[in-house]
Parts: sequence; C-alpha cells; structure tokens
Amino acid sequence: MSKTVLITGSTSGIGLGIAKAYAAQGYNIVFNGLEPDGAAIAQRVADEFKIQHVFSPANMLDVKAIQEMVQTATSKFGCIDVLINNAGIQFVAPIEEFPEAKWDAIIGINLSAAFHTSKAVWAAMKQQQFGRIINISSAHGLVASEFKSAYVAAKHGIIGLTKVLALEGASFGITANAICPGYVHTPIIDKQIDDQMKAHNMTKEQVVKEVMLGKQAIKEFIPIEAIAGAALYFSSDSAAQITGISFPIDGGWTAE
Amino acid sequence: MSKTVLITGSTSGIGLGIAKAYAAQGYNIVFNGLEPDGAAIAQRVADEFKIQHVFSPANMLDVKAIQEMVQTATSKFGCIDVLINNAGIQFVAPIEEFPEAKWDAIIGINLSAAFHTSKAVWAAMKQQQFGRIINISSAHGLVASEFKSAYVAAKHGIIGLTKVLALEGASFGITANAICPGYVHTPIIDKQIDDQMKAHNMTKEQVVKEVMLGKQAIKEFIPIEAIAGAALYFSSDSAAQITGISFPIDGGWTAE
Amino acid sequence: MSKTVLITGSTSGIGLGIAKAYAAQGYNIVFNGLEPDGAAIAQRVADEFKIQHVFSPANMLDVKAIQEMVQTATSKFGCIDVLINNAGIQFVAPIEEFPEAKWDAIIGINLSAAFHTSKAVWAAMKQQQFGRIINISSAHGLVASEFKSAYVAAKHGIIGLTKVLALEGASFGITANAICPGYVHTPIIDKQIDDQMKAHNMTKEQVVKEVMLGKQAIKEFIPIEAIAGAALYFSSDSAAQITGISFPIDGGWTAE
Amino acid sequence: MSKTVLITGSTSGIGLGIAKAYAAQGYNIVFNGLEPDGAAIAQRVADEFKIQHVFSPANMLDVKAIQEMVQTATSKFGCIDVLINNAGIQFVAPIEEFPEAKWDAIIGINLSAAFHTSKAVWAAMKQQQFGRIINISSAHGLVASEFKSAYVAAKHGIIGLTKVLALEGASFGITANAICPGYVHTPIIDKQIDDQMKAHNMTKEQVVKEVMLGKQAIKEFIPIEAIAGAALYFSSDSAAQITGISFPIDGGWTAE
Repeated sequence: MSKTVLITGSTSGIGLGIAKAYAAQGYNIVFNGLEPDGAAIAQRVADEFKIQHVFSPANMLDVKAIQEMVQTATSKFGCIDVLINNAGIQFVAPIEEFPEAKWDAIIGINLSAAFHTSKAVWAAMKQQQFGRIINISSAHGLVASEFKSAYVAAKHGIIGLTKVLALEGASFGITANAICPGYVHTPIIDKQIDDQMKAHNMTKEQVVKEVMLGKQAIKEFIPIEAIAGAALYFSSDSAAQITGISFPIDGGWTAE
Repeated sequence: MSKTVLITGSTSGIGLGIAKAYAAQGYNIVFNGLEPDGAAIAQRVADEFKIQHVFSPANMLDVKAIQEMVQTATSKFGCIDVLINNAGIQFVAPIEEFPEAKWDAIIGINLSAAFHTSKAVWAAMKQQQFGRIINISSAHGLVASEFKSAYVAAKHGIIGLTKVLALEGASFGITANAICPGYVHTPIIDKQIDDQMKAHNMTKEQVVKEVMLGKQAIKEFIPIEAIAGAALYFSSDSAAQITGISFPIDGGWTAE
Repeated sequence: MSKTVLITGSTSGIGLGIAKAYAAQGYNIVFNGLEPDGAAIAQRVADEFKIQHVFSPANMLDVKAIQEMVQTATSKFGCIDVLINNAGIQFVAPIEEFPEAKWDAIIGINLSAAFHTSKAVWAAMKQQQFGRIINISSAHGLVASEFKSAYVAAKHGIIGLTKVLALEGASFGITANAICPGYVHTPIIDKQIDDQMKAHNMTKEQVVKEVMLGKQAIKEFIPIEAIAGAALYFSSDSAAQITGISFPIDGGWTAE
Repeated sequence: MSKTVLITGSTSGIGLGIAKAYAAQGYNIVFNGLEPDGAAIAQRVADEFKIQHVFSPANMLDVKAIQEMVQTATSKFGCIDVLINNAGIQFVAPIEEFPEAKWDAIIGINLSAAFHTSKAVWAAMKQQQFGRIINISSAHGLVASEFKSAYVAAKHGIIGLTKVLALEGASFGITANAICPGYVHTPIIDKQIDDQMKAHNMTKEQVVKEVMLGKQAIKEFIPIEAIAGAALYFSSDSAAQITGISFPIDGGWTAE
C-alpha cells in the first residue's frame, strides 16, 4: 500500500518540485496551495505519475482550514505518513519600515502553520508508530541577512519547533528534521531580486552575484531536485535515527 | 545625563531584577508589566535608587500599547538607549494537546513583541548613533525540551531576530544580542515545576534535580544577578563590537 | 568506469560497514587498517562484491605511509573520487590523569590524518573537477562529554577542517562534509563501556542506558548502515551543493 | 590576597593586552612568551602596575617546559586561579601546498598546548574549588575561511576542549569558556594581510576591507581591550554559572 505525503504550498515552486519527486516514488499526495488553478496543477501531476491525490486550497493562516485539510486527507488515505511544511512567503524591508501585517503573515505562514499541521497529523502518526515531519527552513534558519527580520525569525523558530517534535516523537517512530536551503531559483526569489535591487540600488546581475550567491561558496542556485532528494532521504526507513537536525543545502554558505 | 533603559516585563521576576541592576547604575528606567500593582513596584525601585522612571502597563500583545509606551518614554527621556525584551510566558503540553491560543500568546509575547519594540525604538537609536538591544532568549533558544513547542520556537525565533537587528544596526552604533539563561528560580519556574510533575508523574524534588537541573552540569539555578550583569556588560561602550551573538548562562547545559 | 573510494580504518567497525556499502554500488575500494589480517578482510569484501581493490596497512600517524597509500591507489585507479576519513581511536580519562601520549595519538589519528589524506588526494580531485571528502566526526564534534578531552577536541577540529576544505573546493567540484554519529555499537564502544564502567562505577547496563544512550532521545544504537547510507548520499551527484555541513545521525542527541 | 593569572603568549599582541588588564586589577601574573626580551617586557608591566609576576619562556610545543612553568608559578603563588590559553600562530596556504610542519606547529601551539596547561593547573584548581580557564579561540572556531586549514581546525578543536573542561569542572567550581574574536589588529594580522595579498593578488587596502573586515558587519578591527574585558568578566565570581560557551567578539561576523 502506498504511503501518503502532505506538502503545504505544493502547487508551485519548491513544493511542486517536491510533490513530483514523491509522485515518482508512488506516494499518495495531499496537495495544497492558493494558486487559483491549484486543483488543475495537482490533477496534472497525479495523472502524469498515476498516483492518488487530494487537493486542498487551505490558507495556512486559517487553523480550521488546516485541520479540515488533514481530516479530508486522513479519511481518504488513512494516515499522513510524511508531512512537509513548505508553504512560505517573504518580505524584505528595513526594521523601521517593516509592516506589522507582513510580520504577522510571515510568522503565521512560515512558522505557526507548521505547528498546526504537526498537531493535526500527530495522533495518527503516533498510533501507527511511524511518521516523518520535514520542515523547509532555510540557511536563514541558522544565520541572518539584513532587511529580513520576519523571515529569519520564522525560519529560526521552525528549527526550534523541529527539535521539540523530534524529542516528543522519539518514542513513537516519528522523526522531525529541517532542510535549510540557500538560494533556490523560484518565483519567490525573482520577487526578492526585485526588492533587493530597490533596497541596495543595484542591477539584477549585481544582486544575484553579490547579494544572493555572494554568500554561497558554490556560485549556483540550489536545484529544487536537491531539496526533494533530501526530503525523500529523511522519509526513508534508513533515516530512522536522524531526527531533530538542521540540514543545510547551501553551497557552503553557513560554513563560512 | 543619564541613559535610559526600557525593560519589558520588569515588574516581577528576571525583569525586575534587571531593572534594579540598571537602577543601581543610575539609568532612567521604563518599567512595564501587567501586575495590578506594577506602578507601585516601579515607584519603590525608583525611590530606592533615586532614579527617574516611567511605568507602562502595555500588554505585549497590543501593538498600539507598545508604540504608546515607547512614545511616552521618548517624550520624557529623549531616547531609549537600551531596550531589553524580557517579557515572556510559558506553557507546557504535548504537541497533540497544545492549545492554539497558548501557541499564539507565546509567539506573540515572547517573539513578536520584540519586533514591535525594536521597530519602535529604532529610528531614535539610529539618529543618535547608539543603541543596545538585548533579548532575553533561553537555553531553549539553542536546544529543545519536550512539551515546549511554542516556547522553544519563540526563543529560537528571537535569536534569529537578534541577528538581523545586529546586521541592520552595524552601521549605526546599534548592537543586538541574546542572553540564553538556563533555569532561573522565578515564579514562572514554580509553575513549570508543577506542570512537569503532572507531565512526568514525578515529585517536585525529582523534577528539579532530574528534569530541570538535570541538563545543567552545574546543579544550581541561575541567579538573576548573573543575567542582569550580562545585560549591563552588553550595554557598555566596551561591548561595541559584540553583536548578533547568543550568550548562554546555563551552567554547561548547551555544551553537553 | 567505476569510481574509487578510499576509506581509512576500513578493515573493521564502521569503516568496514561503509566499505561494503560502496562495494555494493560497484566502487573500487582502497582499504586501510591495522588489523593483522587486514589484507584478507579486504580480499573477502572484494571477492563477495566482485570489485577492484587495494589494501594499505598505512598507520595514520605516519605521513609518508599515508602519501604512499594514496600514490599506490592513484597509480592503479587514476584518481580517488571519494575520500572517507574514518580511522579513529578513543581514550577516556579525567583531564588530570589523561596521558599526553593518548592525547597525541588521538589528535594525530582522528584529526591530523584527515589533513594528510585530504592534501594527498586534492590535486587529482581538482584536476578532474570532482571530489567528495567525507569526514566521520561524531556528535562529540558538536557537543562534549566528560573525560573525553582529546576525542572531543579532535572531532570538533575535523569539523573545522571540513569547512575549510568545502570553501577551498567550491570552485573545483569538490565537496567536504562531516557525519556526526551518536553511539554506534562497534568494538570501540565495547571498550568505552568498560572504561565508563570504571570511571562511573556502574554496571554495563547502566552505562549503556544512562551514560551512552542517555543522551539520545531514540534509545537505540545507530546502525552502521545509516552512516554508510549518508556517505553514499554525500557522494552522489545530487549532493553537489551540499558542502561544509555537519550531519548528525544521533537519535536526537544534539537537538536537546 | 591577590589572585594569580597565567597567560600564554603574553609578551606581545593580544596576550600582552590581556596581561595589562589583569595587572590593572592587581592580579599576580605569570607571563609567557618567546620574545627575546620577554623578561624585560614582563618586568615593565609588573613595575607599572606594581604587581608580583613570574616570567617563563616556555615553548608551547614543549610539554616539560609547560609543566615547569606551572610548577614555578605554583610554588611562588600557591595556585593558578585563572588560566588564559592565548598563545597562537597562523599560516595561510591552499590545502595542497600547506606544509606538514606548519600543520603540526599550529595544532601543537594553538590546540595541544591548552590541553597541557589545563592538565597542569587542574589539580590545584580542583583542590581550592575555584578555577577559570579561558581559551582564546576565534570566529574561526565557529566558521571557516579558505587557506586556513590548520588554524580553523585548531580553533574549532579548542572549543571542543573548552566544553569538556567545563563539564569536568562543573562540580569543582572550575569554569571553562572560549572567546572567539574577529580580526584584531596585531602583528599576526599584519603577517596575514601580507599572505592574503599574495594569495588573492590584492592591495593591502582591498585585503583589509574586502577579505578581513569583509566578514564583519561592523567595519572596525576588534580592540584588544574588548577581549581583555571579556576575560575579566569570565574570571569574576558573577560568571560562576557561565561555562562551556563560545563567546564571539566579532562585529557580527558569525551572525551572518
């Protein structure tokens, strides 16, 4: 019988790439995302890989919607075996201009949503004595950059949450780990490049090379496949003893 | 002219201890706290040490109240020179039983409030090219314990925020650092002991020795004076190059 | 054409387990170890998996022997593609009784040898624009335990070396990473159990549960296969952007 | 009665600055250094601050000389209360050209010497139930730079040693901490600037701004007084619960 993975924010970017990698392994997939055509995106992946799926447009700021997403998925597939907290937003501004509403949204989506999903899937994972929680944090979960107060706080926070879940899950076959990518070329990055161009008054090329990949010793964006591969690795039985860790895929960023 | 320190949560526990240490150095103090007799507590400290003070009962969940607290203080003292984000609450429960309302309150008070206060004091610190932001995080900002998902997430998150503020303040004479105490004997700890007794079905003595100080190589609670001393150290001119760091005062907890 | 892996200390314990995992993937293997029957052990693995191999009894304290080992292997296989610095010894004693000779041997074998091997393989890796250096550090590369001054210093040191190699290799397709296992049940552990029994005046069962696995939230020894799996993962093309990291496989030890 | 501090490498640079700061507090000082006029340098400090002192020209690569230095000091002053392991050398070269002799010297002086001194002072510290061991590590004890394999390995290693000493000393009133400075303007730095100019083919100004202070958010060298101040802080009674920590004074380097 196929295992089931729930991936938040999986109708675009990193989440969609992760979904395809799990689909290729035959997992049932619970898709989630706010794209207006999210259901169609999910259907296309399901068709391509001939897998079972559910699509939920739950907003990660809506606790009830998160709970309903998990309940719907559980009633169809029995249990979420792997939960991947991937949904995230970004906003870049100096602290004195950083809007309260942006802070709240980033903390809500990038951090608190992972608490709500983890809580929602926990009892069933505990019951079956197997679970994998994978939180997509960031190199910014370990170190900081200017003008990203909310993002860095949220990404550090989810590493703390990961460690607690690891300790609480240790007796129940549940592991929890955080993946900390450097810069991945996704739509969120294109938006960041624009914001940084304004903040630093730089050209696009300067931002990419000096600001973004300036921190990575290897001067290439992180491929989404590398993140998906890490998630699959943590999902495997052979990773049963790997728990509570932060796993940088960052081209040497945090080593320097 | 005296410098001014604002300490959130300073009408009891660690915050009150820190306030007394700054009062002994002649600082003007902006007190804050929800104790019904907070104003009287603040007045007694001010009288004892013959210092100027302001008291604000601002709730750390109320952004407007935070902004008003800073404005009142600034109009009286000119500028907040030192901001100490100390207010905090705790709640202990397994993830599957952890109430959403407790998560939101802990994230709000222990993490988001520090964003709001930092934003509120920033422009004036920048203007005068001097500022010290000191965030009271915890050993739980670096490592985790079971049943404390919100607290550990918030305390990790504030370390992330600290690093961003350090980078943004580097050009303006503003430093930001996090103090990470182990177990301090305060009312919040008494509550935790009770909660842990229930969670682990242990006696009080067992909880203190095996659960709380079990993680500290030095088997003594951290004295409040040690935390106040560290804050004063970070506030000094000689600490101008110390920024963005996490400073454990934890009896060896995080070394093990 | 097959890739070539050199694994120091690969005629017993973790190293032998890693060797078998690479043999199963068809790698040429450069075995190394001080066991009197090391050549026969290597031969048996080579026969079982039908792979090419070289055996070197180089002592990791002997720089010339290390250089000759690499030269012999290179002349046979062309280039070392993957270098795994695994050889290690341990000694447990309070600081005031810790023998200087044991300090020197542990620093020499567990740390300096990795410098010598890395230097020896570097030019060829750089030449072919591909290399993987994997250092077997330890949870003790990140945190400490009593009575292990030399081991903890060496294991922290090799994490530092790993980061430097990662940065220097970034332009040349060479990655370097450190695996940080918790307690693995190997002969070195049996020796440690004996030493700890004396040091703490405990029974074997007490040492295993309270001292060794007392630090791991998951109360099981780490299987050698998990370490071998991590090494293979870091050796793959999909891990090209993972470099300079410390990778705990420790049942939650360092999360707490 | 005055306390006694032993500072290795204290006849020049950071060590001499630390010695003066302790002299100003009235400590007896055990000076150490290889400068030909080391005895005269020590005498001048002693005269200026009217303190008692001993000078030892012990080479940090010579275990017997280290032991004799401690014995001489102990027979004069009774006990070393504070040990500051500061002696250090540096060498910069790509891994494939890094001389074995330089590796051995850096590991020996920057790491192993701290083991030998700590072992030598331990019994007396334990006997009197008070001791402070302060290891001068580096930001390079936490993160890496290219071309510094030996230095980064040694500086990471001494952080590991620090943690072990902290745990072993916890029951005996002995604390151990590591100070991790960024770039301090000392003779060792002038030498590094020269080496980096060659390695990167840059002007002196470029090396200082882009290579050295390029990693520090605050673009100023770390003043020696800041390091001395931190050491005095760790030496105080109020720091009794601070142990096993790494204390960056690095202008925001490791926060980024």
